[in-house]
Amino acid sequence: MSIPSAVNPDLVKERQNATFDVDEFASWFYGDTALMGMKRLITEELYRGLDDPLDLEYMSYEDVYTAGVKQAVESTVRMRNMQEKINPGGTEIYPTLLSGLVGNAMMPAGNPMAVHLLMFTKALKGQGTSEQYERWGKRADNFEIIGTYAQTELGHGTYLRGLQTRADYDRRTDEFVLHTPHISAYKWWPGGLGHTVNYCIVVAQLYIDGESKGIHLFLVQVRDEETHRPLPGIDIGDIGKKIGMPGVNNGYLGLNKVRIPRIQMLMRNAQVLEDGSYVKSPVSQLNYFPMVYVRAAVAFGNTFFLAQAVTIATRYSAVRRQSPINEPEPQVLDHITQQMKVLPEIASVVAYRLAAGQVWSLYHRTAKDVNAGDYSRLPELHALSCTLKAACSYDSTYAIERMRQSCGGHGYLAAANLGNIFGLASAACTYEGENSVLYLQVGKILLKAWGDVLAKRQLMPTMSYLGELAAWKQFPQWTGSWQQLVEALQYAATNKTRLAHQHYTTRLGAGRTQPQALNETGIELTQAAELHGRAFVTYTFLQEVTGKAAAKRSANLNRVLEQLLELYLVHTVQRHMADILRFVPLSEQQIDDLQTRLELVLKQVRLNAVAIVDGFDLEDRELSSVLGSYDGNVYERILASAKKSPMNKRPVPVAFERYLKPFMRAKL
Amino acid sequence: MSIPSAVNPDLVKERQNATFDVDEFASWFYGDTALMGMKRLITEELYRGLDDPLDLEYMSYEDVYTAGVKQAVESTVRMRNMQEKINPGGTEIYPTLLSGLVGNAMMPAGNPMAVHLLMFTKALKGQGTSEQYERWGKRADNFEIIGTYAQTELGHGTYLRGLQTRADYDRRTDEFVLHTPHISAYKWWPGGLGHTVNYCIVVAQLYIDGESKGIHLFLVQVRDEETHRPLPGIDIGDIGKKIGMPGVNNGYLGLNKVRIPRIQMLMRNAQVLEDGSYVKSPVSQLNYFPMVYVRAAVAFGNTFFLAQAVTIATRYSAVRRQSPINEPEPQVLDHITQQMKVLPEIASVVAYRLAAGQVWSLYHRTAKDVNAGDYSRLPELHALSCTLKAACSYDSTYAIERMRQSCGGHGYLAAANLGNIFGLASAACTYEGENSVLYLQVGKILLKAWGDVLAKRQLMPTMSYLGELAAWKQFPQWTGSWQQLVEALQYAATNKTRLAHQHYTTRLGAGRTQPQALNETGIELTQAAELHGRAFVTYTFLQEVTGKAAAKRSANLNRVLEQLLELYLVHTVQRHMADILRFVPLSEQQIDDLQTRLELVLKQVRLNAVAIVDGFDLEDRELSSVLGSYDGNVYERILASAKKSPMNKRPVPVAFERYLKPFMRAKL
Repeated sequence: MSIPSAVNPDLVKERQNATFDVDEFASWFYGDTALMGMKRLITEELYRGLDDPLDLEYMSYEDVYTAGVKQAVESTVRMRNMQEKINPGGTEIYPTLLSGLVGNAMMPAGNPMAVHLLMFTKALKGQGTSEQYERWGKRADNFEIIGTYAQTELGHGTYLRGLQTRADYDRRTDEFVLHTPHISAYKWWPGGLGHTVNYCIVVAQLYIDGESKGIHLFLVQVRDEETHRPLPGIDIGDIGKKIGMPGVNNGYLGLNKVRIPRIQMLMRNAQVLEDGSYVKSPVSQLNYFPMVYVRAAVAFGNTFFLAQAVTIATRYSAVRRQSPINEPEPQVLDHITQQMKVLPEIASVVAYRLAAGQVWSLYHRTAKDVNAGDYSRLPELHALSCTLKAACSYDSTYAIERMRQSCGGHGYLAAANLGNIFGLASAACTYEGENSVLYLQVGKILLKAWGDVLAKRQLMPTMSYLGELAAWKQFPQWTGSWQQLVEALQYAATNKTRLAHQHYTTRLGAGRTQPQALNETGIELTQAAELHGRAFVTYTFLQEVTGKAAAKRSANLNRVLEQLLELYLVHTVQRHMADILRFVPLSEQQIDDLQTRLELVLKQVRLNAVAIVDGFDLEDRELSSVLGSYDGNVYERILASAKKSPMNKRPVPVAFERYLKPFMRAKL
Repeated sequence: MSIPSAVNPDLVKERQNATFDVDEFASWFYGDTALMGMKRLITEELYRGLDDPLDLEYMSYEDVYTAGVKQAVESTVRMRNMQEKINPGGTEIYPTLLSGLVGNAMMPAGNPMAVHLLMFTKALKGQGTSEQYERWGKRADNFEIIGTYAQTELGHGTYLRGLQTRADYDRRTDEFVLHTPHISAYKWWPGGLGHTVNYCIVVAQLYIDGESKGIHLFLVQVRDEETHRPLPGIDIGDIGKKIGMPGVNNGYLGLNKVRIPRIQMLMRNAQVLEDGSYVKSPVSQLNYFPMVYVRAAVAFGNTFFLAQAVTIATRYSAVRRQSPINEPEPQVLDHITQQMKVLPEIASVVAYRLAAGQVWSLYHRTAKDVNAGDYSRLPELHALSCTLKAACSYDSTYAIERMRQSCGGHGYLAAANLGNIFGLASAACTYEGENSVLYLQVGKILLKAWGDVLAKRQLMPTMSYLGELAAWKQFPQWTGSWQQLVEALQYAATNKTRLAHQHYTTRLGAGRTQPQALNETGIELTQAAELHGRAFVTYTFLQEVTGKAAAKRSANLNRVLEQLLELYLVHTVQRHMADILRFVPLSEQQIDDLQTRLELVLKQVRLNAVAIVDGFDLEDRELSSVLGSYDGNVYERILASAKKSPMNKRPVPVAFERYLKPFMRAKL
């Protein structure tokens, strides 16, 4: 089956009708014109000649791993070489692009060395002494050794203090004895741990003379550098297939009294001396700051998963024709129910892109304070990044499944790639802080902030609306302006926080412990946290569209962004209408007006829908979808992908002679 | 890793604390004590010695198909033999159990002969003449030939009139010429079509002398019975990997002027005579009645997918311990946020079980009328089955993903089986009527019903509430009774229907065509349809718990069912609070009271949660999950499943010598 070289006429027409410049949108979306140019340039070279991702779908699990290692090694070399060529010593290509969109496109099975790069090398540098870095960190930096970071256990994820792996100091031999006393103490999940790494940083409870000193990091060699065979006392392997990320090689590790020299505890902060005396860390163990960055990165990543899915769904909806509204059959995108599924997610991509960018820039602005030991803005940033990560991973996961459904049966094909994108997005609901746990942490911060409201203390900037709106006797006269839609969400967040605080206090008063009262108020706390997040995301979107930045953009682009803002605000307010109506009295007519606005703006956004997703600037390799390619030759691509199935390489399957023929002859 | 023979003490304790008899619950849930006993008896024998479903996860795509055919053939023979043994001539085991829970458990890759059994044989019998049945139907009944039913095309799914495959009558040779004029006309999706079947019923546009006669069914042989090679003019194969159901062997079929004798059009109704004259069918082509049954069956099936997921999540939540509320760490099920995720879905299983049963019994009661040519209740049944199928498939799909997330990282393991269950549930949102299309059909029926309301005509029984509640001047004084919670949903459905009708009429008045006006009112119509479904499901649940049937149950069981009803009603009302608050004025206190009720009933249901899911009576083979087994030995089972990964069969992977070692030696 050959794919036509021409673009599908439906997509040509959609693009001709666009009212704005796609490149201007893309530059704005990525934040920089030069960067956009570079992205296009380098990905063209990076993506050249790579294996077809669809091949992975038909391989055995083990073959996928082998192919995944090949792709990871090749991608690493390729990016490193390009970095050397374009800007030696820089990091904008290597190692930056190994994670995220470009990395996913080059390593569709996942990267078994991702944790090596993102955590192992960083821990050696950041948590190790300079001698430790000299000895192991440098070798890790150029992959002479490959490591991972083993924290979670079979029986423990989020709650770190519950970890059971022990490191007992043996003064006699100046060694630590690492041991997993139960199978629930087995390290579980670290990427690459299964069969890729030969070293591992193990997070374990330090014991000296039987006395617990809390959690510390230990460098443990797990495989022989020459033969790659597991070392004595090491029970190591692959944890088995998962919903997604088949090539990441997540592993388990059981330690049976494995001895390592004392100097293999990472000792930049806390130390154990030769005589067994323990020197406490001068800095707090609970430094959430790096997590702010990581969680904004997760939100950023999931925003792009959603961008992929919505690009696929939008293009397919413009090409697919169905139903009896007119003759010829209309594009599916002209069905308002389809618009209702797909278009709000286009706006959602933009909203989360802006919010993640905002958290990142707050992070950078706060970094100096933190380095100077001023942690005062940390709870605020922590709350923002938690709620953003939870909201974005949750929303994107369910939205991607809706995009799958919006593509009907064909969305169910592996070649549509929506299943894989869903698998990646869904995982993010659990890793880097399980979403409910994150919302509860935000809820706790909101409770504290409400205490500040009651005591008329100053609030953190992104929470100051709680104080302002708490002072309102009632919600002002409804105008339905954008400002008011954001305020409606803020007002709901404020009042949900008030109620949660009230119920929490009542429970404390009735004699519940703090953790018990927190638990019992959990539903309301998570709801308040979610609303706080929505308020932040909508506020950020509003600021970007109506703020000073607008002057730098063309009127045409601004008009499109305004429509996306309108769609996002109306849709978000409708979504939380139950909470809003509790506190903001709206008449039937006012609610009806919002529905009219929704239907109007759907029509407006629909006109530019294909062009806007073009502006997300995702290349075919990044979408990897027969439904979503730029040329829209959907049916030819579906058929071509089917022809690639190994089942179709021979006319008669093995199963015929073996099972079907005897069965049919048996005349059951 | 050996699995302990004892049940996990946490589950023992949960079961000891149960306040009702699990067997009584199970008998009630399945509708019959004797049936329950038979289910347990036969599945014990049917499941004995089957392959480990986990093996499939590690195979190549092609090997999965081969294994799937083996399992399908063996399962068919096994069930047929058991039917002969237990009750010759009956159908309660064969072929009934080949689909649904038992079939899924025995054929975890899916059954490539399912469409043969469910549609091919039935069409030959129901749509063929008795001669046609004699000649092909009988051979199909005992699998001498295997067939499928090819309706959807690459370019057309839901909208049947758009199908492009042609069957032109050639008077000269007394043959039909079957042809797919474009690739978008390729038949796409039929189960078993790829490499399993040798016959196929093709749905095609009949043309006589170039004149269209609409859609008819044609029996086409696609493969040689002896060699299984595709016949000339037949382009047939596998459509490639999908999100789930890897062994179903969905296929494509292109027809290049394939000739079949005239007598291979199924002619029980419409006929083409030798001289080319066309005899119209005496019965309406649009008989939705069988679809009522099928859609209730889909709802039933998805209810059991949800039951599987919630059983897994509940048992795991009772065994998993995490977080610092108390020492020792509490069961995750004691976290109220976890209760909020898991427990409403237990109630949801019961609600959908009852609603599907209700539609089935309405179906059976109506069957006689239909056979007597009285189709008057069909729109009502059609509406009920559509909305139930859409609501249940949608809710269960997203709920199963929530169950996955409620199991944290381990829920992401293939061995947890939640990914597969999700894949099966999600597919049901698309097949047998895409959900949005179904809701739109219900919306149309509601519009018509609203016309009846306005004209004071009699309404169909399950829609009569629209007329009654439309007459209310306002919603009565709020008491929060169960009756009122159902009425609140009915009232919202009524008013949403009223508004949709009003907007639809306005659009017609403004000159829009009927299809245009329907499309433009689509969002409100689908919302009204969804609410109509919710009202039906909650009403059915209320009737079962408070109606006459209660007297047949023990007080203990009734108390549990009442708690599940309370949970379901409060939760459903909260979920639709935005719509309810528009039409039912509730005070802040009244809304707060619902939250208090929710938190109370969660605690009550939590106490019996493990016992209730035990009452769903799903065997370990049916759950196929390391997290959900009856004995709760979760960690041992996870570790044992990991050890089974083929990756762990040898200490050093192929990828080491081939890729990793050179990479590490290269000192990048």
